[in-house]
Amino acid sequence: MKVEGKPHRTIWLDDKTGIVSMIDQNALPFEFKIHDAKTHHDTCRAIITMITRGAGAIGAAAGFAMAQAFLEGTRDGGRGTRGGGRGTGDGIYTALQLDFFVQARKEIEATRPTARNLFHATEKVFNAGMKSTDEAIKEAQRLADENVVAALKIGEYGNVLIKDGFHILTHCNAGWLGFVDYGSALSPVYVAHEQGKKLFVYADETRPRSQGARLTAWELMKEGIPHTIVPDNAGAYLMSKGMVDIVIVGADRIAANGDTANKIGTFEKAIIAREFGVPFYVAAPLSTFDLSISDGSHILIEERSEEEVHYQSGPDEEGIIRKIRVTSPGSTAFNPAFDVTPAEYVSGIITENGIVKANAESIRVAAG
Amino acid sequence: MKVEGKPHRTIWLDDKTGIVSMIDQNALPFEFKIHDAKTHHDTCRAIITMITRGAGAIGAAAGFAMAQAFLEGTRDGGRGTRGGGRGTGDGIYTALQLDFFVQARKEIEATRPTARNLFHATEKVFNAGMKSTDEAIKEAQRLADENVVAALKIGEYGNVLIKDGFHILTHCNAGWLGFVDYGSALSPVYVAHEQGKKLFVYADETRPRSQGARLTAWELMKEGIPHTIVPDNAGAYLMSKGMVDIVIVGADRIAANGDTANKIGTFEKAIIAREFGVPFYVAAPLSTFDLSISDGSHILIEERSEEEVHYQSGPDEEGIIRKIRVTSPGSTAFNPAFDVTPAEYVSGIITENGIVKANAESIRVAAG
Repeated sequence: MKVEGKPHRTIWLDDKTGIVSMIDQNALPFEFKIHDAKTHHDTCRAIITMITRGAGAIGAAAGFAMAQAFLEGTRDGGRGTRGGGRGTGDGIYTALQLDFFVQARKEIEATRPTARNLFHATEKVFNAGMKSTDEAIKEAQRLADENVVAALKIGEYGNVLIKDGFHILTHCNAGWLGFVDYGSALSPVYVAHEQGKKLFVYADETRPRSQGARLTAWELMKEGIPHTIVPDNAGAYLMSKGMVDIVIVGADRIAANGDTANKIGTFEKAIIAREFGVPFYVAAPLSTFDLSISDGSHILIEERSEEEVHYQSGPDEEGIIRKIRVTSPGSTAFNPAFDVTPAEYVSGIITENGIVKANAESIRVAAG
Repeated sequence: MKVEGKPHRTIWLDDKTGIVSMIDQNALPFEFKIHDAKTHHDTCRAIITMITRGAGAIGAAAGFAMAQAFLEGTRDGGRGTRGGGRGTGDGIYTALQLDFFVQARKEIEATRPTARNLFHATEKVFNAGMKSTDEAIKEAQRLADENVVAALKIGEYGNVLIKDGFHILTHCNAGWLGFVDYGSALSPVYVAHEQGKKLFVYADETRPRSQGARLTAWELMKEGIPHTIVPDNAGAYLMSKGMVDIVIVGADRIAANGDTANKIGTFEKAIIAREFGVPFYVAAPLSTFDLSISDGSHILIEERSEEEVHYQSGPDEEGIIRKIRVTSPGSTAFNPAFDVTPAEYVSGIITENGIVKANAESIRVAAG
């Protein structure tokens, strides 16, 4: 996608410096800036604090962080190791080095426990790293490229669901900020828009972190797609009045049977969409599928700090970013970050291998 | 209810001065202060800007504003009138006075078009004022007292629905701040709590104005009732895990068949409650019923400024109240203030005459 007219990925790794650079999604939409993470610790911190976020972007970040760990563990003979050395190509590491890589992987995987793409990436890059650090880097870059290709294909497949004049509701941000490029839920919107279809997008605010109001709205504005922000509460109002033709959302983890973990509130929209006969689609690359779990009851739901509900940040009238309390002081808040939408509510899953029915048989076939 | 240990109504009229005083609900929960409205224009402004809000409080405010208009129109011989005079008791007004009262009524009724209690109050006080200004004042005070009695009875009837150990979900604020005292949806909670039942309340944040996070949470804290604030998005999560035993909400207008207009997002909770078999109750005095309309399709839904979605206010780290932008600049927002929950989703309506089924026959009987 383009920012200020220039092609831009959301996150990338510089092979030479080992620095992972990313669009700072906490600064958006009020400031566009790039955050540099020099070590795998830094990258983990960026994932936890959601400087980078979104299923695909987290996956890429995790792969890069794993590659950074191999760089760190083999640079200058490795961290506290005897021997090792970068790019030996023989995969022979000392016990200390191996321990360092394993610890790094654990650290990365602890950042966002619900995000399947994260575990997919650490596994792939860790295994590549067992051959050599160069292989780890190559694999991390390959995963990021694969993410871009998958997102584009999701756009092409999903595009067939979008008719000219459609009003689309989306929740959270599963656009190009949430991926390396293009996005999942928004990728079909971008393809349809490019093809000249008239579209209108309702961007759910998506409290408590307001990714819809802050990130999806910003992306859609940059792409020139007509849209408006709606409070999460407006879903039933819109659908009961026939104002929504299709709902498309992303996913953080999809079980073997199609049960889908996604941003808190997704399940509500799915129930309401079914109530009003509005098609409800999930868009996600195959790296989001977790075939090791039979259904959504096994998905661990990340519970985030209640501070995310209590405080909001943004510019005041003078443009100075302020953090303010928006809830009654002295009261607690409960902040589950995701919910699980059972497969029965999902009309279909848009993947890079086509649109798949949300059931075990179809998913198994699509995942090859 | 008590504030700082003293009994406190939410809104009241001083007969002598003609000043309507009210708890400033825009300053809460960060500051407790009383707002004085000297004229019926001031009171209208307070209703529009939501310094006072909530079905019952709006009703009382509207009655008081109408009484203020009679005071203004008859004071010092009336506003630009010949004759008239306050408290003549004979109901003889000049054409100019009559026009003033009619215009005032229109102004009051234009403030919050969805709120049935408002129209109920202006009609009652206007008719009383046709006898004399004193009668208008008496009627406005009587309506406020009636509001308190109805709210208390709603609490007593609703209490039977609440079992010891119940977890209750409520949306927006239909507590004592939204009434003259006690509230509608929260009144049963207060009665149950007084009787020693163990309770836990989930207060929906209720974007965009966050009445749940700011007002309901504040009220519950003052009353010592265990509670937590939840993002509006968490409803399906909570109910799917069996964490909610009953949903109780207020109402702004109820049609003859039981279709209920209430704060945007209520309809979503009703759909989800039905999906999970959670009882969904509406609590409202009979003054909220509009028997002149057959169903909810005739209820006018107030659309409020998009600025309510874009901006939030609250104290920064130094306690200074700041207004910040919380959405992407350049994007629009859509802000319908209410939605209509069809009667079929409503388990029952808790009124001062008992718990009524949400159908035309039962409502007609209850309304006498």
